[in-house]
Amino acid sequence: MTGSLFVIVAPSGAGKTTLVEALLREEPSIRLSVSFTTRSPRPGEIHGREYYFVSRTEFEAMLASGEFLEHAEVYGNLYGTSKAWITAARKAGEDVLLEIDWQGAAQVREIFPDMVDIFIMPPSIETLEARLTARGKDSPEVISRRIAGAREEMRHISDADFVIVNDNFDTARSDLRAVVRATHLNRERQLERYADIILRLV
Amino acid sequence: MTGSLFVIVAPSGAGKTTLVEALLREEPSIRLSVSFTTRSPRPGEIHGREYYFVSRTEFEAMLASGEFLEHAEVYGNLYGTSKAWITAARKAGEDVLLEIDWQGAAQVREIFPDMVDIFIMPPSIETLEARLTARGKDSPEVISRRIAGAREEMRHISDADFVIVNDNFDTARSDLRAVVRATHLNRERQLERYADIILRLV
Repeated sequence: MTGSLFVIVAPSGAGKTTLVEALLREEPSIRLSVSFTTRSPRPGEIHGREYYFVSRTEFEAMLASGEFLEHAEVYGNLYGTSKAWITAARKAGEDVLLEIDWQGAAQVREIFPDMVDIFIMPPSIETLEARLTARGKDSPEVISRRIAGAREEMRHISDADFVIVNDNFDTARSDLRAVVRATHLNRERQLERYADIILRLV
Repeated sequence: MTGSLFVIVAPSGAGKTTLVEALLREEPSIRLSVSFTTRSPRPGEIHGREYYFVSRTEFEAMLASGEFLEHAEVYGNLYGTSKAWITAARKAGEDVLLEIDWQGAAQVREIFPDMVDIFIMPPSIETLEARLTARGKDSPEVISRRIAGAREEMRHISDADFVIVNDNFDTARSDLRAVVRATHLNRERQLERYADIILRLV
């Protein structure tokens, strides 16, 4: 049975990373796609876990040979997703989850029109600002750039299949699990999964 | 916010009625649409609860005046769903659930293309036969007619949006709730629900 492809899109500060971590713990059948990037590792990040960290020259060589399903430049760094890796995982029946931006999601949709695009949205602009400030990771300049980026991301909410408002974390986490569970029940997947039983019943 | 429309289709013996009863208990926001029928009430059935029981003359008059969203003749009895009732309930923000057959579902889809069609499927033909026999309500003749009807119904499984296999009752019940929850998160509904927040964020 072909694995499902979940694409999670969210503005900075929507709480995407924490939600995705919770989902991956609760649904160990879902594999997080690890992207390639030219940005430097942050403290604690490990090559092959958070990202494959590569030089710009390496990235551009991969890009030229068509290895990326999607790629984008964000705050001066390149990010890309390996098409071959996702195709192989899905063929092996594994669900794959991508955390990318709206531009990447649009590119992925062209290759995998059956992808499930889930948009995580903050409950308000004030919450978004408060969350970005509270993490204390970024300078005020970076924060205001992230807020501008978040507003840009929000403009593409209508590209999503599902929209989850991350106000209460437990509610948002259950929402995300419900979307995953319902996706596993969609017609195409179930007809493939239960073909033998259905053929005996008709 | 416009209410969702859930259409549950299943062959006899799939366990639809018990699943729907459980769902309605757990999700009191969902209203079961009550159909009109020309068949006689079974013991314990109440006019306006299980069905509106009407004469064939009354039914045909309603049909002629276009009051039915869908109607079908099953085992010699007429069944019909009131279009006006569903439209009003959805406009008032209520979710509506219909239990109908595949022909009815196809007719409803023409009027409400956003309906969510959920097919409940038995785990095997043996289970189906065993369940119909175990209920002890029907004569062997009626049972074999129901099995033929079930096979016919199964041929239309590919019209559904979601397919739930009712093998383990608790699993099927959770599956059904996940489909309802995920439907509440779909883009159209969420954009309508959170329009104010989204407009402030973009």
